Amino acid sequence: MEYVEKAVVSRQQNPKIFLSGSIRGGRQLLETYRLMYDTLEETGAEVLCWHVADPELEKTEMGMTEEEIYSRDMGLLVKSDALIAEVTVPSTGVGYEICRALVKEIPVLCLHRPEAIVSAMVLGNPDPLIEVRTYPNEASLKQMIIDFVKAL
Amino acid sequence: MEYVEKAVVSRQQNPKIFLSGSIRGGRQLLETYRLMYDTLEETGAEVLCWHVADPELEKTEMGMTEEEIYSRDMGLLVKSDALIAEVTVPSTGVGYEICRALVKEIPVLCLHRPEAIVSAMVLGNPDPLIEVRTYPNEASLKQMIIDFVKAL
Repeated sequence: MEYVEKAVVSRQQNPKIFLSGSIRGGRQLLETYRLMYDTLEETGAEVLCWHVADPELEKTEMGMTEEEIYSRDMGLLVKSDALIAEVTVPSTGVGYEICRALVKEIPVLCLHRPEAIVSAMVLGNPDPLIEVRTYPNEASLKQMIIDFVKAL
Repeated sequence: MEYVEKAVVSRQQNPKIFLSGSIRGGRQLLETYRLMYDTLEETGAEVLCWHVADPELEKTEMGMTEEEIYSRDMGLLVKSDALIAEVTVPSTGVGYEICRALVKEIPVLCLHRPEAIVSAMVLGNPDPLIEVRTYPNEASLKQMIIDFVKAL
């Protein structure tokens, strides 16, 4: 039953989503990344880059080389149907991933809090594949994610 | 005389350099960006994206739309022979610009302080066009920039 419910959310069955958020730029929004991850799971999406929402991430990555982390993340991006980035916390990695997703020509949804000071490379980006939205609260954040996945 | 001195620094006469640093991610390293800008000017390079080192930048950009800022920066990147990024302060814009420079296949030099927590998208990037270096002090920062411009 659960599977049936999930499958109707997106036109594309179980789209693969790359979830992008700050790791070394700061983990202060970890709870938000977890909410985004949970929402994506609820829609039936397959979250390929789930580790951004993993509170144990630092421990896991301590055993990996920088090259292994890069290679894991870019390997997942190549397989993704879309990217969702939380851009409230400035992050060099998130900016890099947004660019790579646009180069790969997949839809990108950038979400941020109203008080965030967001890069002009995001806010002023004319690429029709990128959509930037401000979420005033958790309920609207969830809804924006559901709407985006639905339209894939 | 000054022109002759400058011209011998780089094999490529007056290479155009895109200088990338944090703007909205935080301006705490503005003095460093200014030093990088001055060093580049001394080598005879043409700094196309000089505004990152401009203390009045916020004022100038207040009169521009997000699209105008994006369009100015990406227009300059297209004309650049290389990109030099200071990656100590996490910045979504810097990450985006690094990616765009690599897609355009121009050399990228990423510089950071020893204590910086730098993204794996930079540190683990296997692209042969990207070089990442740690500078312990201002003298070494200057020398790294001079060496990079020389090799262009």
